[in-house]
Amino acid sequence: MRTHKLKTETVETKTRVQMVDVTARIQKLISANRVESGLVVVVVPHTTAGITLQENADPNTQHDLIKKLESLVPQVESYYQHDEGNSDAHVKSALVGSSVTIVIDKGRLVLGKWQAVYFCEFDGPRERHLHVKIIDEGSGDLD
Amino acid sequence: MRTHKLKTETVETKTRVQMVDVTARIQKLISANRVESGLVVVVVPHTTAGITLQENADPNTQHDLIKKLESLVPQVESYYQHDEGNSDAHVKSALVGSSVTIVIDKGRLVLGKWQAVYFCEFDGPRERHLHVKIIDEGSGDLD
Amino acid sequence: MRTHKLKTETVETKTRVQMVDVTARIQKLISANRVESGLVVVVVPHTTAGITLQENADPNTQHDLIKKLESLVPQVESYYQHDEGNSDAHVKSALVGSSVTIVIDKGRLVLGKWQAVYFCEFDGPRERHLHVKIIDEGSGDLD
Repeated sequence: MRTHKLKTETVETKTRVQMVDVTARIQKLISANRVESGLVVVVVPHTTAGITLQENADPNTQHDLIKKLESLVPQVESYYQHDEGNSDAHVKSALVGSSVTIVIDKGRLVLGKWQAVYFCEFDGPRERHLHVKIIDEGSGDLD
Repeated sequence: MRTHKLKTETVETKTRVQMVDVTARIQKLISANRVESGLVVVVVPHTTAGITLQENADPNTQHDLIKKLESLVPQVESYYQHDEGNSDAHVKSALVGSSVTIVIDKGRLVLGKWQAVYFCEFDGPRERHLHVKIIDEGSGDLD
Repeated sequence: MRTHKLKTETVETKTRVQMVDVTARIQKLISANRVESGLVVVVVPHTTAGITLQENADPNTQHDLIKKLESLVPQVESYYQHDEGNSDAHVKSALVGSSVTIVIDKGRLVLGKWQAVYFCEFDGPRERHLHVKIIDEGSGDLD
C-alpha cells in the first residue's frame, strides 16, 4: 500500500445553482500519482454544495435535475428559520450528498459509459474546494 | 493488506422500477475471497439506477419507498428537457445514490438486523451491472 | 497499514425526529487510536435513521432540514402499505443515506469550517448504534 497526501482542488462557480464536471481533474490526480488500483474519496467541505455522479452526454439531464431539486426544495418556504436565505442549499446538500467514493482500476476511475463526477453548487457563485483522498493498493498482483 | 481484482455482477431487472436484494451475492464474493476485515464498495455504473440499504423484512417498505419517489419525482414534468422520457430516473439516481460502502468484520458484511443492500432500477427492464471492490485489511490481529 | 477493530457507539435519541452531532465522538476514537491518516466510515445499522454532514453553526439549519423532509415525506400517505406507521422514516433514511466516509489527515477528521457529522433519527426516541470503521494508512511519509 502506497500512501498519498490529501489533495485539494478549487472550483469557481458562476451562478447560484450549477453542476460542474470535475471528472478530468480527478483522473489527472490519479494519473499524476501513478495509482493503478484502489479508491478515491472526493469530499465537498461545504454545507451548501454537493457532489454526485450523473450523465455527461446530454446537458438537459443536468437542467432537469436542477429544476426538479428547485421544485422540491424552493429557496423560500414560510417555515424556514435560518436567516441567510440559503436553507434550500443546505437541504439539497443533504439530499445529494457531500462525498463520492469511486473505484480505481488499471489506472482509471471506474465509471459507467455515461457517468461523470459533478460538483453541485447550490448557493453560488463562490470559490469552492474539493478534497481528494486516494487509497492506493499499490501495483502488486491482484488475487 | 491483500488486494483483490474488481468484480462485476449482472442484475436483470423485470420492470421499470424495481428494488433487487443483492446482499447474498456480495456476501458470497466476500466469503469466496476469504476476506475477514475491511470494506466493500458497491458501485452502480448507471445514471438511471441507484443502490441503497433498506429494510428486508416487509416488502411493503419497498413499495412505499418506490411510491413516494414516484410521487416526488414523476416520470413527466412540463419542464423536463431531456428527451428520453427518463429524467425522473436520473433524479432518483442522484437522490438515492450510486454507491454504498459497507464494513466487513469477521468475514461478514456489517449490516443491521433488518438491513439489506438493494439495487434500485429506475428505468428498466434492463441488464445492469454492479462493480464490487473489496478493500481487504488481511487477517492479522486488529488493535 | 495498521488495522483497527470495528468500534460501536450508542446514541440515545429523545424525540421522533432529531439530529445529533456525533463529530466529537468520532474524533475521540481517531485520537485515542492515534490515527494520523486514512479514512473513517461511519455506518448506521438502522433503516429508519440516517447520517449526514450538515452545518453546526446555526441550529436553524437543522430545523429547516427536518421541516423540509417532513413536508416532502409526511408520516401519513394514503398509499403507504407498511403497517408500522414509519414508512416516512424508511424513505428519509434512503434519501439522507446510511453512511458517511470521512478523510482523516494529520490526526483530524477533514471537515469544512461549518461541517459536523449528524446522526439523523427519523423514528425515535430509541437507543441507536453507530459503527465506526477506521482505515489507517499508518504514519509513514506520504507521497
